[in-house]
Amino acid sequence: MTIDSSKKIIVETEKTLRNISGIIKKNGRKILHQYPITSPQFIALQWVSEKGNLTIGELSHKIGLAFSTTTDLVDRMEKNDLVERVRDQKDRRVVRIHILEKGKQIINDVVQKRQDYLGTVLASLSVAEMENMNEVLHVLHENMHRLDEIEENK
Amino acid sequence: MTIDSSKKIIVETEKTLRNISGIIKKNGRKILHQYPITSPQFIALQWVSEKGNLTIGELSHKIGLAFSTTTDLVDRMEKNDLVERVRDQKDRRVVRIHILEKGKQIINDVVQKRQDYLGTVLASLSVAEMENMNEVLHVLHENMHRLDEIEENK
Repeated sequence: MTIDSSKKIIVETEKTLRNISGIIKKNGRKILHQYPITSPQFIALQWVSEKGNLTIGELSHKIGLAFSTTTDLVDRMEKNDLVERVRDQKDRRVVRIHILEKGKQIINDVVQKRQDYLGTVLASLSVAEMENMNEVLHVLHENMHRLDEIEENK
Repeated sequence: MTIDSSKKIIVETEKTLRNISGIIKKNGRKILHQYPITSPQFIALQWVSEKGNLTIGELSHKIGLAFSTTTDLVDRMEKNDLVERVRDQKDRRVVRIHILEKGKQIINDVVQKRQDYLGTVLASLSVAEMENMNEVLHVLHENMHRLDEIEENK
């Protein structure tokens, strides 16, 4: 019976998560529309902003796109003055992607707008309810992230 | 003080949600890779499968893409035998998108794989924890959906 009830919850939760993702994507696209940047460029920019100067190989791993697709993406981002390619200080053969001021500014702006959006979405919740939601999402993310790391190291 | 603490929670929750979305997207892409369908085609197919025969206008609204982009998408989906265009029974001037057997099969397969993935992600949770997560995500989705409807009707 426990297996049946978990199965039923999983089916519901998967659908809800899929719908949430869809709305986040649609809303994210609406926000990005105001900036000279595409959705894949924004995703790549977030990784470079968060993890520091990544190589193209590391970035392609993070975003789950092929190496050649990631190279094209970085080319367009460089042309767009969002990032620049820099030589690694320790190993001059290694090229790393460095975020530029314009890239940082866009990340900050977009994240601020996403926070404003979420603030509006959750306006009717009490602080306790928000804390519970935050906690639950944190657990979900931790579990996803752990599985992701296992998959990556396979 | 309440405003400050909600603000802090919102900042955290937005980041966690953004990360969850990123992992879902990456994992979804990995699953879709096994099928002859792109990510935008899958999103469109889900809407047609769920809401029944939509017009291109209705579909473009749901996925948040321009009318012309949605037309191109439906052209490729039709070529791919996922959907067909049918005349509305009541108003022959209206064209609706009808999902075909191959489209239904792909939706079912992909959703099943996403459920399996989520089952693995949440394997360590108790049924009570899963129920709480399901409930919280439901509240989040309801609130997002409500705001989305308000935005659409503006």
